[in-house]
Amino acid sequence: MIKVVKIGGNVVDNPELLRKFVKDFAAMPGMKILVHGGGVLASQMQKSMGMKPVMVEGRRVTDEEALKVVTMVYAGWCNKNITALLQAEGCNAIGLCGADGNAIKAARRAPMKIAISKEDAVASGAYGNMKPCEEDGWHMVDYGYVGDVTAESVNAGFIYTLLERGIVPVFNAINHDGEGNLLNTNADTIASSVATAMANYRYRSPREVCCRCEECTHCSDDGRLTHVTELIYCFEKDGVLYDKDDDSSVIPEIDRERFAQLKAEGRVADGMIPKLTNSFKAIDMGISKVIIKHASNLLKDKGTTLK
Amino acid sequence: MIKVVKIGGNVVDNPELLRKFVKDFAAMPGMKILVHGGGVLASQMQKSMGMKPVMVEGRRVTDEEALKVVTMVYAGWCNKNITALLQAEGCNAIGLCGADGNAIKAARRAPMKIAISKEDAVASGAYGNMKPCEEDGWHMVDYGYVGDVTAESVNAGFIYTLLERGIVPVFNAINHDGEGNLLNTNADTIASSVATAMANYRYRSPREVCCRCEECTHCSDDGRLTHVTELIYCFEKDGVLYDKDDDSSVIPEIDRERFAQLKAEGRVADGMIPKLTNSFKAIDMGISKVIIKHASNLLKDKGTTLK
Repeated sequence: MIKVVKIGGNVVDNPELLRKFVKDFAAMPGMKILVHGGGVLASQMQKSMGMKPVMVEGRRVTDEEALKVVTMVYAGWCNKNITALLQAEGCNAIGLCGADGNAIKAARRAPMKIAISKEDAVASGAYGNMKPCEEDGWHMVDYGYVGDVTAESVNAGFIYTLLERGIVPVFNAINHDGEGNLLNTNADTIASSVATAMANYRYRSPREVCCRCEECTHCSDDGRLTHVTELIYCFEKDGVLYDKDDDSSVIPEIDRERFAQLKAEGRVADGMIPKLTNSFKAIDMGISKVIIKHASNLLKDKGTTLK
Repeated sequence: MIKVVKIGGNVVDNPELLRKFVKDFAAMPGMKILVHGGGVLASQMQKSMGMKPVMVEGRRVTDEEALKVVTMVYAGWCNKNITALLQAEGCNAIGLCGADGNAIKAARRAPMKIAISKEDAVASGAYGNMKPCEEDGWHMVDYGYVGDVTAESVNAGFIYTLLERGIVPVFNAINHDGEGNLLNTNADTIASSVATAMANYRYRSPREVCCRCEECTHCSDDGRLTHVTELIYCFEKDGVLYDKDDDSSVIPEIDRERFAQLKAEGRVADGMIPKLTNSFKAIDMGISKVIIKHASNLLKDKGTTLK
């Protein structure tokens, strides 16, 4: 089994929570991959350098100066700090951005049409990166050095070479376009793209069972093996809540039918809908399950499981 | 043959020179490793964040905040930028700090006794990190998160695994102590330590000739092979100059006898003496030769060769 774990910026930014998480992640048996954010620290760094973080629909508008900052914070400080902490716990981690070993390529995002009024555009600080559309209340926004990642752009062979040697890849949100440019990408999408790529990677194994777990014995038609792959999103809540004001109302399991029901009841908050939609898409593409849980519960059988 | 190339901060900071160097380095055949500095950019970044870079005897005093900055600049911006540029030239580079794959460990430097008066200590900005010695004009200086690297602390087996797969390691000056701390180290020393470690690494090769070059056919006593290893320091001069004011006075070859002579004549500048002394030490420890040349002459048979 391969486990792909994503932690958000709020875990990375919290030294105590990070230390506990790192201990738990190091203790987790089997093949594993970590993906981390770091957005809060990047915004702090921009401000300390006299820049204004500009966000449109939750995504950072990334000009040349902002790219330098996010690369320094994500691929430099956060990534190397986590890697050194994992090494101290006996976990042979390797910090990677997409350019390293050509692990992940990203495609630069073309300007996107979004619903935003001129007033809101100006208030966001991103009006300079926008062009008004003919349609009132819509603008084309250029996110700058921002890229998108898919499972096809993940170099699963290289990642597998590391896993096979007991090396644990730690990815940050910086990737490259193959033409010498670094691009700022979304860590959630990296996690689901890497997990999907690994779930679909077929390799020749000298052993009958790929990694001594019982789940990965299934042989595909060409005599190669594929791994059962799980995706785990760790954040600051205990899971998907039935009542957003009650932290104890975690829904233990959600299938497609229940998801439709929860949406219809208005039970799933706005920010959670794309996360769940993308998770079900990843399951369609080969991931066995997606778990959403609190970062401090990594080793505990808690949280929400999507199947 | 394995070539270990070091470029200084003045190459990294110069986009035009860097782009040319990257093209040349990518075109260089055979197994290769790059080590880079980035000191000028780190000082600029410290200033832009309202900090004062503090240097004592050419080495940066690295408190917690300075460590964050050098990690961001060296392991983040410089390292990932160089890696992406190499990938664009078809060179499968991987950017590494010492914590990545436990590639290089460093030992934190104990406070050192140096000859500096109180006035000079105060002027350097490092007086807070110093304690006066009983002897007048001497102080104990605590460099903070600064470490030292030796050939023994280099994980040659891991580096060789990468080289064997055609992956090109790109090291920056950040290493770790194995206890979760990052340490700022000296890039020249990393280059000579990595080159020495690779020169002494014995591996079992399935081929008779290790890397298809003619120089590495020699077999050691236990049936394993070792590589001929070269160390190349690239900087902004054409080599070691006989007359420091005449850029055309490059000395093509220096052996130990000539080095003693040049020192006696006062021909070798202060800053060059430790570089040459360390180079001869590295040759004693197994490196075949050390070349000192201009960064734009990487592929040209120019510069000073130490044997």
